[in-house]
Amino acid sequence: MRKGVMRPGHVQLRVLDIDAAVRHYADLMGLIEMDRDDQGRVYLKAWTEVDKFSVVLRPDDEPGMDFMGFKVVDDATLTQLGKDLQAWGCAVEEIPAEELKGCGRRLRFQAPSGHFFELYADKEYTGKWGVSNVNPEAWPRDLTGMKAVRFDHCLLYGDELAATYDLFVNVLGFYLAEQVLDDNGDRIAQFLTVSMKEHDVAFIMHPEKGKFHHASFFLDTWEQVLRAADLISMTDTSIDIGPTRHGLTHGQTIYFFDPSGNRNEVFCGGDYHYPDHKPVTWMAKDLGKAIFYHDRQLNERFLSVLT
Amino acid sequence: MRKGVMRPGHVQLRVLDIDAAVRHYADLMGLIEMDRDDQGRVYLKAWTEVDKFSVVLRPDDEPGMDFMGFKVVDDATLTQLGKDLQAWGCAVEEIPAEELKGCGRRLRFQAPSGHFFELYADKEYTGKWGVSNVNPEAWPRDLTGMKAVRFDHCLLYGDELAATYDLFVNVLGFYLAEQVLDDNGDRIAQFLTVSMKEHDVAFIMHPEKGKFHHASFFLDTWEQVLRAADLISMTDTSIDIGPTRHGLTHGQTIYFFDPSGNRNEVFCGGDYHYPDHKPVTWMAKDLGKAIFYHDRQLNERFLSVLT
Amino acid sequence: MRKGVMRPGHVQLRVLDIDAAVRHYADLMGLIEMDRDDQGRVYLKAWTEVDKFSVVLRPDDEPGMDFMGFKVVDDATLTQLGKDLQAWGCAVEEIPAEELKGCGRRLRFQAPSGHFFELYADKEYTGKWGVSNVNPEAWPRDLTGMKAVRFDHCLLYGDELAATYDLFVNVLGFYLAEQVLDDNGDRIAQFLTVSMKEHDVAFIMHPEKGKFHHASFFLDTWEQVLRAADLISMTDTSIDIGPTRHGLTHGQTIYFFDPSGNRNEVFCGGDYHYPDHKPVTWMAKDLGKAIFYHDRQLNERFLSVLT
Amino acid sequence: MRKGVMRPGHVQLRVLDIDAAVRHYADLMGLIEMDRDDQGRVYLKAWTEVDKFSVVLRPDDEPGMDFMGFKVVDDATLTQLGKDLQAWGCAVEEIPAEELKGCGRRLRFQAPSGHFFELYADKEYTGKWGVSNVNPEAWPRDLTGMKAVRFDHCLLYGDELAATYDLFVNVLGFYLAEQVLDDNGDRIAQFLTVSMKEHDVAFIMHPEKGKFHHASFFLDTWEQVLRAADLISMTDTSIDIGPTRHGLTHGQTIYFFDPSGNRNEVFCGGDYHYPDHKPVTWMAKDLGKAIFYHDRQLNERFLSVLT
Repeated sequence: MRKGVMRPGHVQLRVLDIDAAVRHYADLMGLIEMDRDDQGRVYLKAWTEVDKFSVVLRPDDEPGMDFMGFKVVDDATLTQLGKDLQAWGCAVEEIPAEELKGCGRRLRFQAPSGHFFELYADKEYTGKWGVSNVNPEAWPRDLTGMKAVRFDHCLLYGDELAATYDLFVNVLGFYLAEQVLDDNGDRIAQFLTVSMKEHDVAFIMHPEKGKFHHASFFLDTWEQVLRAADLISMTDTSIDIGPTRHGLTHGQTIYFFDPSGNRNEVFCGGDYHYPDHKPVTWMAKDLGKAIFYHDRQLNERFLSVLT
Repeated sequence: MRKGVMRPGHVQLRVLDIDAAVRHYADLMGLIEMDRDDQGRVYLKAWTEVDKFSVVLRPDDEPGMDFMGFKVVDDATLTQLGKDLQAWGCAVEEIPAEELKGCGRRLRFQAPSGHFFELYADKEYTGKWGVSNVNPEAWPRDLTGMKAVRFDHCLLYGDELAATYDLFVNVLGFYLAEQVLDDNGDRIAQFLTVSMKEHDVAFIMHPEKGKFHHASFFLDTWEQVLRAADLISMTDTSIDIGPTRHGLTHGQTIYFFDPSGNRNEVFCGGDYHYPDHKPVTWMAKDLGKAIFYHDRQLNERFLSVLT
Repeated sequence: MRKGVMRPGHVQLRVLDIDAAVRHYADLMGLIEMDRDDQGRVYLKAWTEVDKFSVVLRPDDEPGMDFMGFKVVDDATLTQLGKDLQAWGCAVEEIPAEELKGCGRRLRFQAPSGHFFELYADKEYTGKWGVSNVNPEAWPRDLTGMKAVRFDHCLLYGDELAATYDLFVNVLGFYLAEQVLDDNGDRIAQFLTVSMKEHDVAFIMHPEKGKFHHASFFLDTWEQVLRAADLISMTDTSIDIGPTRHGLTHGQTIYFFDPSGNRNEVFCGGDYHYPDHKPVTWMAKDLGKAIFYHDRQLNERFLSVLT
Repeated sequence: MRKGVMRPGHVQLRVLDIDAAVRHYADLMGLIEMDRDDQGRVYLKAWTEVDKFSVVLRPDDEPGMDFMGFKVVDDATLTQLGKDLQAWGCAVEEIPAEELKGCGRRLRFQAPSGHFFELYADKEYTGKWGVSNVNPEAWPRDLTGMKAVRFDHCLLYGDELAATYDLFVNVLGFYLAEQVLDDNGDRIAQFLTVSMKEHDVAFIMHPEKGKFHHASFFLDTWEQVLRAADLISMTDTSIDIGPTRHGLTHGQTIYFFDPSGNRNEVFCGGDYHYPDHKPVTWMAKDLGKAIFYHDRQLNERFLSVLT
């Protein structure tokens, strides 16, 4: 958090059928619908999040990610980071406050990987959902489905990983927590964090820019991962792989698809990071185990199905 | 237990390399080596079992199962069941006491499915391993690896399921807990129990007689299934599939192979059975979900790799 | 199950306020209300039970247990056991079918401990609640509260343990799974089973006859015990002790009270029993650890608060 | 981490019998002995920690905490924080490098609560114990006992909470994550964090300065808390309370004592904190539930047994 970037704050996803998408993200995954706007967008959040929303679903003809937003500590920091981004060579677009309901002004930029990101300092503080801020109970009794705990990170596919690394590490203050190196020592995957989490955003080398692999949500326990898997089956939701463990981060995970084909992850556990931690390295020749620690081989779908 | 058959008591497996096999069953799976004999056989047990052994490894050129043994309540019952088997039309061979060290006389017969089974009434009572029978602690501190709790059941592939059902249910007093029916209403899988467990032995329809699919061991929790999966990876053990849940029995499971190619399962949870329970039915057209509840599709290996 | 007694089938409890009791057993514990009758009794069951009900709540001025019922395998067995009970010296009262809705004729008797028990062979088969018998899902999505899995056992306080043992073991075919012996070698606690469970009914020596300590319900996992504890707190339900583990049976448990003061337990795990298992013994001088394995000391409430 | 303080890095505890203490912290809790020095001190660490040690045991006649140390991001930050502490009014003592083996220079100060703290920037980087930094396995196979994951925080009793708050928040950059307020609105407990953890150090109002309540270590799961509880019982270790959940932080926990009477906690779970989170407040009148969420009442021992 050395530059004032605090955490992943939201992701805007394109969905083909907004009603089916809401059933998926709310009824199945357990996010809470918080608002809608006149663009037809639906705003949702996970119950432990204190701000108004973390997932925005936008109806469109093609699935994928519009942008991912990071919250920074205050408006002065936001202004400074905007300047730093421009100094680094990034075009920065300012999106006015309330273009997303309840959200302050956002500074949008495109990373060399082709993805759009935003920074913002203010969002309506709604507090955790379903529990009081005084004498809070351990959890709300009326959560549904997977009871997702928080929006955690995105994994993105694109090229120019080195330049993207430079931008995130040197301008935005992220740390490299984990990486995959090929036989030439080139980094083909980078897991970046601004907190104790093993990744707040991650990039995998891919010839096409700006592709979306998955948005990930935290669950409390491995038993909740099992229940998520059960729910995926009960609801005939398209599964990708899991329950399993990652080698990278060692999180325990399951992947599946929303009705528009966007991949989701729910996971628990995983390692933690401090700024003085040396990055963990996985070798590309062992990528199977790095990604799927138990199977030790990749499924083609995981590498190639992107939105 | 209406005919006095109590539980699966042992399984004798053929292994190609006895040292590698012992490392697998003892160091990795956590069974305890209890004895060896002059045939080169190694006797092991899981820690909660009160009798001397439940797994016998026999060095041979081909993997597979020699036989599976069931313990009956007393010697008079054993004698009666021997007569009942013969009356039903089964040849019964008596194996003298101590042919397996610490085990009383065994009555061996071949089921119509082609598999060899044994009944016996006596085995040396060693008590649970590592805990006292007075003021017992919750578990022994020096278990290794997966810490398998007990030998639980075998799944066997063969033909003549109807005749095998008749033998197990009407002669030996098993109950049908779960079944898979094809479109003609024919039973292509039968899960049989003499206790509260959802299966003590199970058969899958297969054109070749006498094939062995897996021997299964119970674990306490889903977290222990995860740790088993981790250990499989750490030890470069060949994995089949998992962690996942079955539709049939709803147990939570992982499959892998011993160094000789015999398949093992460790699992936890699962439904329970009482004699008045109607059998649970899965339809063959949904066999994918019946076997692998989350993936909802079979892997070819699971159906065809047998020993 | 050597005499044909199969399992604990129901318990009838007296409650002071039927609406409060239903909120407790249904909304909090997750039992399903199945019926009511013109005596004002409410019938409930846990979701995995195949028969119509397992808990009957009867409005009365004093809390406590009216009787506990065991299901036997068929009506001929019921008739025989009635004769055996009388031959042993027990008065047997026949309660006609439908006195409890959906239940066949019941044979009621009083054990030397002072408690009333019943045997019955028939009860309306409703199947598991919320899942099909064909291609059943792993669990129903709309369970509430603690999601109790099944009525499991009762623990009862009374005197004449030796005679009660004789009745249950020699007439009804129970096995002694666990016991507490005092310094004189006298049994002051006996845990009796007719199945693989470590207890289907248990008795603790107590000078007053016919007292009720608790009715116990099974949960799937230690995480569900935690959630039960959380729910107890969230609903301001009176807790006794837990989460903890027992020494006896090694189950993982929490105790609390219904609004009428009847004690409940929900628990998971625990050892298993087969007829050839020697009983596990705890010494009375170590009763603290036998009951509460972690604290290793009894709370006075656990020993003295009875209904 | 706005002032460069990164995490709790070590705690030095006084113990009466060093051998008994090592058995407790290493064999039972699973810390790894890393070194000893000529003062008779023993250095230990938990396996996920990258630096050489986190717990130092010093033989002495009285138990208690000598000091708790925080690691800062670099030496320049250390220098600056030393100046800031002095400017605030704290005497700062510099302890030379290697006074603790493998640790760089430390700046020691006494908080108004009476406790001694240290800041340091350098400690020998040994990496995680038992796993490689390249293709790391999920966990080391040869951990013992409770398999503690990391030294997590200390809870301290003393007075002058307001001044201590000012020091930690305004000089050292901590955030107030949780607090207990009395009826006058005075803060009687403050949980302070420099990271995503709900507390890195916590203070409870107490008339005597400089008292030590407990040092806490993280475990992965609630099942590991159960196993810790089992081990406490198996080793006849003195238990305080648990397994249970806290209201404050909602962590799942168990407390016990080392052979010298110093209190330890192992726990899992718990909420997370970001700098924009408003502090969670518990009311002093509900302190029972705040501390022990399930029992909702304090035991006297928890409040009064300090070292």
